[in-house]
Amino acid sequence: MDGVLELILCDIGNTTFHLLINENEKRYLLNEKLPAFNEKVYYISVNDKGQDSLKSTHNDIVNLENYIDFETSYKGMGIDRKVACYGIIDAIVVDAGSAITVDIMSNSEHKGGFILPGFKKIENLYTQISSKLDFDFNTKVNLDKIPLCTQDAISYAILQSIIEPIKNIREKQQIIFTGGDGEFLSKYFENSIYKKDLIFENMKRIINANNCIA
Amino acid sequence: MDGVLELILCDIGNTTFHLLINENEKRYLLNEKLPAFNEKVYYISVNDKGQDSLKSTHNDIVNLENYIDFETSYKGMGIDRKVACYGIIDAIVVDAGSAITVDIMSNSEHKGGFILPGFKKIENLYTQISSKLDFDFNTKVNLDKIPLCTQDAISYAILQSIIEPIKNIREKQQIIFTGGDGEFLSKYFENSIYKKDLIFENMKRIINANNCIA
Repeated sequence: MDGVLELILCDIGNTTFHLLINENEKRYLLNEKLPAFNEKVYYISVNDKGQDSLKSTHNDIVNLENYIDFETSYKGMGIDRKVACYGIIDAIVVDAGSAITVDIMSNSEHKGGFILPGFKKIENLYTQISSKLDFDFNTKVNLDKIPLCTQDAISYAILQSIIEPIKNIREKQQIIFTGGDGEFLSKYFENSIYKKDLIFENMKRIINANNCIA
Repeated sequence: MDGVLELILCDIGNTTFHLLINENEKRYLLNEKLPAFNEKVYYISVNDKGQDSLKSTHNDIVNLENYIDFETSYKGMGIDRKVACYGIIDAIVVDAGSAITVDIMSNSEHKGGFILPGFKKIENLYTQISSKLDFDFNTKVNLDKIPLCTQDAISYAILQSIIEPIKNIREKQQIIFTGGDGEFLSKYFENSIYKKDLIFENMKRIINANNCIA
């Protein structure tokens, strides 16, 4: 590699292209046209349409899925989850985006995981069920008290439906959060950290581990 | 009252009219036309359109919301939840329909509760997030093992997002399940029972407690 400054990384999710352009983050919707880049674009993708769009506008691209060294007995694990867990020794890895993926790494081995719907997806679901359940999420709801109004009854349930399944599988390991709702969720767990750029950091590690590909 | 045999009960929910006609259960979608009845119809409703529809086709109707004796400091509790909890002394009451309401009764007092999205609503949400998450629910997923494939990762998460928040508030009391998914969910809890007709049974109790209204 010629140096970190010229790196362009692209994480294609279910709703956006998430780019790191010379250390600057930028998001584009999947139906938006990406700017032209002179540099090579290293990418991962869980969305075929997004990948096709990148391919149609850029020639010099490298799919890091072909280079990641990540073994697991889990069948069908998305590349975003593999990258999030890459190089982690002992931790629960939670990527809280449009879905919330929860994975267990133990002694550098992937032990499995589960997939919850994303925070905002659950929030919007209540309105679909009944207009009487159309409330803004109360970020200050007290989880130590049984709710006594509908706004809290919904806010409490959304949070607990995410928090309790994670607590249930936790032994004493650290929890690493990433993704749009990761910082907010991390506040509900002791011994947890929020790594905003976990995916990009690990994409760089994969590039460095395969320096032949630069 | 002239006798139980002539009772017509109607529980208007968010998707159906649920009727008990002379002890026979029957469901109609909210946009379907109800048959004509000669008898008085005792009803509860959480859906204004459904209630309007009933009113437009039947004259001899009694809204049991006006007769239920149920005190709580919870603000905005739906009549269906009040009826489900009516007369319960010590239990957690779970009505698992298009929403899953969870309420705590302790010493005949309502202590509060919370509202999860319904089972099938959550299931359908995954497909909305990504076509790669479009799997049938695995009813036999093992909750004691961390999932190792996407179908199990989703099935496990759906179940745990419902089960764990309920376990978290449970002390040692019984759990009473009702609603379409109540029987299935009850199997995951010790000291629980499924009362298919909890709402109708309690509607009858309210009628009996107010025998002047017959």
